[in-house]
Amino acid sequence: MDLQELGRRVKDAAAVMAATGTAEKNRALSRIAQELRNRQAEILAANRKDVKKAEENGVASPMIDRLLLNEERVLSMAEAVEKLIGLPDPVGRVIEGRRLENGLQITKIRVPLGAIGIIFESRPNVTVDAATLCLKAGNAVLLRGGKEALESNRALSIVMRDALTECGLPADAVGLVTDTDHETAAQMMRMNGILDVLIPRGGGRLIRTVVETATVPVIETGTGNCHVYVDKAADLAMAVRIIDNAKTSRPSVCNAAETLLVHRAVAKEFLPMAAEALRAHRVELRGCPVTCSILPEAKPATEADWETEFLDYILAVRVVDSLDEAIAHIRRYSSGHSEAIVTGDLAAAERFKREIDAAAVYVNASTRFTDGGEFGLGAEIGISTQKLHARGPMGLEELTSYQYIVEGNGQIR
Amino acid sequence: MDLQELGRRVKDAAAVMAATGTAEKNRALSRIAQELRNRQAEILAANRKDVKKAEENGVASPMIDRLLLNEERVLSMAEAVEKLIGLPDPVGRVIEGRRLENGLQITKIRVPLGAIGIIFESRPNVTVDAATLCLKAGNAVLLRGGKEALESNRALSIVMRDALTECGLPADAVGLVTDTDHETAAQMMRMNGILDVLIPRGGGRLIRTVVETATVPVIETGTGNCHVYVDKAADLAMAVRIIDNAKTSRPSVCNAAETLLVHRAVAKEFLPMAAEALRAHRVELRGCPVTCSILPEAKPATEADWETEFLDYILAVRVVDSLDEAIAHIRRYSSGHSEAIVTGDLAAAERFKREIDAAAVYVNASTRFTDGGEFGLGAEIGISTQKLHARGPMGLEELTSYQYIVEGNGQIR
Repeated sequence: MDLQELGRRVKDAAAVMAATGTAEKNRALSRIAQELRNRQAEILAANRKDVKKAEENGVASPMIDRLLLNEERVLSMAEAVEKLIGLPDPVGRVIEGRRLENGLQITKIRVPLGAIGIIFESRPNVTVDAATLCLKAGNAVLLRGGKEALESNRALSIVMRDALTECGLPADAVGLVTDTDHETAAQMMRMNGILDVLIPRGGGRLIRTVVETATVPVIETGTGNCHVYVDKAADLAMAVRIIDNAKTSRPSVCNAAETLLVHRAVAKEFLPMAAEALRAHRVELRGCPVTCSILPEAKPATEADWETEFLDYILAVRVVDSLDEAIAHIRRYSSGHSEAIVTGDLAAAERFKREIDAAAVYVNASTRFTDGGEFGLGAEIGISTQKLHARGPMGLEELTSYQYIVEGNGQIR
Repeated sequence: MDLQELGRRVKDAAAVMAATGTAEKNRALSRIAQELRNRQAEILAANRKDVKKAEENGVASPMIDRLLLNEERVLSMAEAVEKLIGLPDPVGRVIEGRRLENGLQITKIRVPLGAIGIIFESRPNVTVDAATLCLKAGNAVLLRGGKEALESNRALSIVMRDALTECGLPADAVGLVTDTDHETAAQMMRMNGILDVLIPRGGGRLIRTVVETATVPVIETGTGNCHVYVDKAADLAMAVRIIDNAKTSRPSVCNAAETLLVHRAVAKEFLPMAAEALRAHRVELRGCPVTCSILPEAKPATEADWETEFLDYILAVRVVDSLDEAIAHIRRYSSGHSEAIVTGDLAAAERFKREIDAAAVYVNASTRFTDGGEFGLGAEIGISTQKLHARGPMGLEELTSYQYIVEGNGQIR
């Protein structure tokens, strides 16, 4: 189908979804979960085609793992959908309101965003996760996944569309772009008037492409060049636990730490302690000259190392002369995701909280907590690193907008 | 100065402004107002240069009027700045917070947006209005006005910069782009990493250009193709007052009505009443065939008339068979600004409220109320017609973002 036509159908479905009640939306989610279980064989067969093709094309094994579905993964998709049912529906929530002098009653009320474009890579589970979150918040979605996962995405979206139809809701509340060329993706990113927002989900390159190309408003997600700063007044044992956790508990995610900053006054004592803990995970250290003089195993860091989200067992390390220098370093290199200070000094903590411009600022805790689940949002569509609309973990409420309802009895101005 | 360097200075100033307290910001606003009064001669002299040049270039007189400053206009700028002082500072307001099971204390708190780019046309008052609103909310601004107003904008920004310096705040919290070519504007719209958001202020063409060109997140403002729908259950006398007010009280603004929709059941009675009221302002009517058959003075409407924001004494008029048809028409042509229904029927009002996707939805009132002042925001930077971040009138709070502060005592995940 022509992309414009597909988009218009999704837009029309968005209007229906916006007027659909919570119970009906939950019934559809429940049916989607049920059908994911019932039609597992069909989904896995489609996925086998994708995997076979990827193997034939010599795709690297970590990417094949991302692409692969199995019984367990499909079940966990279904469970994630069922978890959404229990979450409160943000639509219709009254944010505030007042009566004006002239008698007009103004109510600011949550409404769905509308038609949401999701652009993602080769993980087929994003199809269901993202679509069902959008549906719960009363939106319709237009999905565009990577070409490697086309058969899987097609099967999954058919299952969701069928479930919607069975519940009397428009199948087009879940649309899938099946032309996976770049031209079609670029066209989708410029569908102003049809799509209300675009959410790219994937690596830095995908996100940059969307930001560069889109004229539809974009929510930037996911890039995390996160720092842990160990102040001179830090509890050093706590600081070791925090940097070890922030770097090694799951290095491939956006809330993992990429750079360690250490105050000069504690560097000689702290760096060997940290290095010992990190050695267990064979973390490669790339240090500034002072770091290298203290830790013989550290390689010299280049300018690029301060800028890089390694997503790997690599840590850049820099010794700084002061809290000011730490703040200046973070201001320069941070992607605005999660930043942590370890300190026992109240004034240092207060300055860090006020002066660091990131979605999440931590005092004496690991950056790894920046996550919708951990923050109690119940579910997460992504972690915003921009300041417009939403910042940090985005749950159902961040998939809504608001509207002013103004009720009168003939008021004119 | 090189645009990148200018941008970086504004960004650095934004960090200082973010950490500046309310009292200090208010002191700077007060000083700006005072200096606008004290240095009026200098401002008016600069403005005379702009006006003279525009006259020499044969610029049309409505545009010269927009460009022109006089004593009264400078004073009213100063008064607008002083009004900001009394408004509550949104920065630091705690939105919500909780303690997690693991003891982490999470606080979601309002912070400034950061560095805001304002792109506007030939009204020099925007320079001061927009800049001071941004400053009050703890932001820094990079201003880029039309080339016709360059001397005026330069004088006004010097006054503001001097006032900031006198108050110990960074002058670069107000930056002015003095290269007024399109290339520089385009470059400004792509300053990701330096500017956090762009707000274009001006006509539809300017806004479209910014949306098309920008990679920095944009807040779309101002286009209003607003409708008034007169239902079959309307109080027709009230409906006449509302359409007359919505069309003629100030046709050049975005919350003025552009299309009147009338239910067929009341069209024969209502249209002549409405036409009579509108005749006093010589409103040109462009009607559908049914309208033209009822009102001999109406010209036939074209497809373009349904799409056009006339901003003039012109009204498109269409007779519809049902509320459904009215909703469908609005869904198709609305710019998502302000939409009104006039009805005494509860079910019709409820459906209109639920199904119309606009920033402000009115029941039995004029669309002209969509305005920061009327809505009680105290001041307004523009009216957002997009759904991301802010919708409808944007005041100080809409010039902020939020941040999560997470405080612990060694928590790891």
